Amino acid sequence: MPVQASHIKQAASALKPTRGLRSLQKGLQTRAIILDAALGLAAQMGLEGLSIGALADVTNMSKSGVFAHFGSREELQIAVLTEYHARFEEEVFFGAVRTTRGLPRFRALYERWLRRVSVEIDSGCIYISGAVEFDDRPGPVRDALVAMVKAWQLALHKAVGLAQQVGHLRADADVEQILFELHGLILSLHHDARFLRNPVALKHAQAGFDRCLQYYATPAGLAADALARKPVTVTARKRPTSPRIDRSKT
Amino acid sequence: MPVQASHIKQAASALKPTRGLRSLQKGLQTRAIILDAALGLAAQMGLEGLSIGALADVTNMSKSGVFAHFGSREELQIAVLTEYHARFEEEVFFGAVRTTRGLPRFRALYERWLRRVSVEIDSGCIYISGAVEFDDRPGPVRDALVAMVKAWQLALHKAVGLAQQVGHLRADADVEQILFELHGLILSLHHDARFLRNPVALKHAQAGFDRCLQYYATPAGLAADALARKPVTVTARKRPTSPRIDRSKT
Repeated sequence: MPVQASHIKQAASALKPTRGLRSLQKGLQTRAIILDAALGLAAQMGLEGLSIGALADVTNMSKSGVFAHFGSREELQIAVLTEYHARFEEEVFFGAVRTTRGLPRFRALYERWLRRVSVEIDSGCIYISGAVEFDDRPGPVRDALVAMVKAWQLALHKAVGLAQQVGHLRADADVEQILFELHGLILSLHHDARFLRNPVALKHAQAGFDRCLQYYATPAGLAADALARKPVTVTARKRPTSPRIDRSKT
Repeated sequence: MPVQASHIKQAASALKPTRGLRSLQKGLQTRAIILDAALGLAAQMGLEGLSIGALADVTNMSKSGVFAHFGSREELQIAVLTEYHARFEEEVFFGAVRTTRGLPRFRALYERWLRRVSVEIDSGCIYISGAVEFDDRPGPVRDALVAMVKAWQLALHKAVGLAQQVGHLRADADVEQILFELHGLILSLHHDARFLRNPVALKHAQAGFDRCLQYYATPAGLAADALARKPVTVTARKRPTSPRIDRSKT
């Protein structure tokens, strides 16, 4: 059956976004732009520093334009938290999952976490500032923040528990205690680097992790850790050398 | 020479406060009342939550009355910090100085610090919230806060250094590293207890300190620590017993 022109036109119009779909896409793009600006603002000023007015200024939009995407300041704060959490998970957890399970994965997680906090020395960490801002302010924003902090704690707990199961950490080690101590190193890094501008804070956080392993890891765990950290040595192929000419004979 | 009545009158009037002195005393009392209320407000709401208006409400004074004692919000914030610092020093440092130098004094310091943070689980810690509030806000309040944090870090550094000098901590231990890790335990305690309402956070902070000692302390240090922690056993004096009466014989 020959393909009729009307059929082609019909198929093409099905592929082209309709006016409704286009406006939806544009709406989502605008929302993403506002959210990105909101993340930057919240990292610097804290979640409480977020306001529809300040966002309108930063994005060059009208207040009502921002308001159309986030019905209230609370809704905006929770949207920022959700986006922040998604990026944290992506950077810290999903990236480390490819590493060998056990101590190598545990170290990969910690190092990714350090890297993220190091970037945030300039911009600020919403988890840390949020915990201080909302520690005694009950409500949906605090609830959302607690749920997210507990979610990454659970993910870390699983990774550390797995390192224990495969025999890389001592069987009598208390996983909760390890997490408490590591989180302390992260908080101390954030405090000393961001507030005191101490340039050696990152080294202290790395040394603290190594000391933690020296205490909690098994010999098998330390061996696996050393193997995973061993730099890959590339053996250079021998270049064919041109035969030496004995110039004394010429 | 007989004491004349006029002399007595003169001496008595010298002892009585003059009107100027009395008003000065009253002024200082009022200032102390405002400062006390300001400390409570800052612990709960953060230093940025402090305002002349809020303080006037809490103290039942007029705004101009509060303003007469603290010329600006910044001056008030710095006065609060100075008072907080004096109380922290009094509680944590001056109290621990009486303990035997070396590891016992180091432990006494840490435990007093823990006790203070434990009390602040309900009220909030101005050092911790202040560091987050002012981490990227330059100015005299930030400068004052940094100076105070550095002052207690120096005092702790001295105590830990002394424990190393008397041979209670390993000679190769890095004092800065130890302080970084201990401060992490304190920050983690504050986060988990105040924000996550985790009831076992204090136990983790105590266990973290013991683990730190197991790594950094010398056998002599651990022995001194154990001796200092040994509960004092009071040997009860033998009560004089009344002679037994052999009732079978009566």
